[in-house]
Amino acid sequence: MTTKKTNIILFSGDYDKAMAAYIIANGAAAFDHEVTIFHTFWGLNALRKSEHVATKKGFIEKMFGKMMPRGADKMGLSKMNFAGFGPKMIKDIIKKHNAVPLPQLIEMAQEQDINLVACTMTMDLLGLQTEELLENIQYAGVAAYLGEAEEGQVNLFI
Amino acid sequence: MTTKKTNIILFSGDYDKAMAAYIIANGAAAFDHEVTIFHTFWGLNALRKSEHVATKKGFIEKMFGKMMPRGADKMGLSKMNFAGFGPKMIKDIIKKHNAVPLPQLIEMAQEQDINLVACTMTMDLLGLQTEELLENIQYAGVAAYLGEAEEGQVNLFI
Amino acid sequence: MTTKKTNIILFSGDYDKAMAAYIIANGAAAFDHEVTIFHTFWGLNALRKSEHVATKKGFIEKMFGKMMPRGADKMGLSKMNFAGFGPKMIKDIIKKHNAVPLPQLIEMAQEQDINLVACTMTMDLLGLQTEELLENIQYAGVAAYLGEAEEGQVNLFI
Repeated sequence: MTTKKTNIILFSGDYDKAMAAYIIANGAAAFDHEVTIFHTFWGLNALRKSEHVATKKGFIEKMFGKMMPRGADKMGLSKMNFAGFGPKMIKDIIKKHNAVPLPQLIEMAQEQDINLVACTMTMDLLGLQTEELLENIQYAGVAAYLGEAEEGQVNLFI
Repeated sequence: MTTKKTNIILFSGDYDKAMAAYIIANGAAAFDHEVTIFHTFWGLNALRKSEHVATKKGFIEKMFGKMMPRGADKMGLSKMNFAGFGPKMIKDIIKKHNAVPLPQLIEMAQEQDINLVACTMTMDLLGLQTEELLENIQYAGVAAYLGEAEEGQVNLFI
Repeated sequence: MTTKKTNIILFSGDYDKAMAAYIIANGAAAFDHEVTIFHTFWGLNALRKSEHVATKKGFIEKMFGKMMPRGADKMGLSKMNFAGFGPKMIKDIIKKHNAVPLPQLIEMAQEQDINLVACTMTMDLLGLQTEELLENIQYAGVAAYLGEAEEGQVNLFI
């Protein structure tokens, strides 16, 4: 029997959508799927380090870097964001219900050997550099994604 | 020949996205697929009863309950919502073109024996209780979803 | 060996999401997949001609026609749109990094014989007429989509 594969493209930079992606991914890994989360566009923000990293960038790239959330914990909600109050509500409620917040879901994913991939093409577009992203992630493009996805059972775009 | 399966995760709480989900689901059921719509996060709102249901809840859960739309007919649009005017335009135009509005698409889905599943983990997070949701739906978690999805031909995240 | 199939539903009318859809589609075509992009709801705007086309329409349909972007180049961003400034930033940065802007990605898709399909049901809903859309596209409904998708390896909803 061949290993089943789950491949998730995380395009969204929303806290709630990233939570959904990582919950499915961690579940699939627990089911012995080989799991890959391919982070592209705003989804790359989930892989950013929370501290500032000094880099040399052009003006627009610097602006993007400043405006985009630095890491999973700083991402907003897709609905009812209320100028940043929504994420706090969700985090309070996650705590209250003993659910797992996003940064810990990402740690769990790394512990379960889920492949966390950063899309190099959109990193380039948004001016993100490898030093700004978490350790132990992979770098690849759309060809690598398709190689996995054409053999996948569960392929999702989130 | 084994039955084909369509599994849709409805994450979105937007009227138009939920319409797309239910149109695909009803189409797949007409093609004899075994169809499951797994409602999670804001997608749970499509399963809410339109009338108020008295429940005991904590403060944040009560706030979420008040702010989230009560049922399919009250959901907003993902684009051109115009402070609630957009859904009225869409509904007028659905009527004019003899298309099927969302609440009826959900009824059709139930008549076609589509599995409407509410994600228990996010129900808990958003403070939604079973009494607030439609009759004849199922309750399950991510493990049940993955069990279906790994055998599915059409898996979508909406 | 049978040809692999990639089927993308493009629901979104956002420039960045449409870019992602077309980059995946062009990549899959380069991998010899048979590729279909099924444009529905706001995704139809990617297929609109950029010039005004005279049509006879009802009032609401005319309003929708005016408010929706006329073609790929006029679409907004899903994040950081900044009242239309965001797309300009993205386009500047696409140019700077020698990436391919959306209108050219669509041309590439047509050159690679990717099936660009417009969903007739939502065209009707939004009041879009065939004269307003690009040449050499196909017109079909959800049944045609499902016929392709149930045989597809990579099925995505964007």
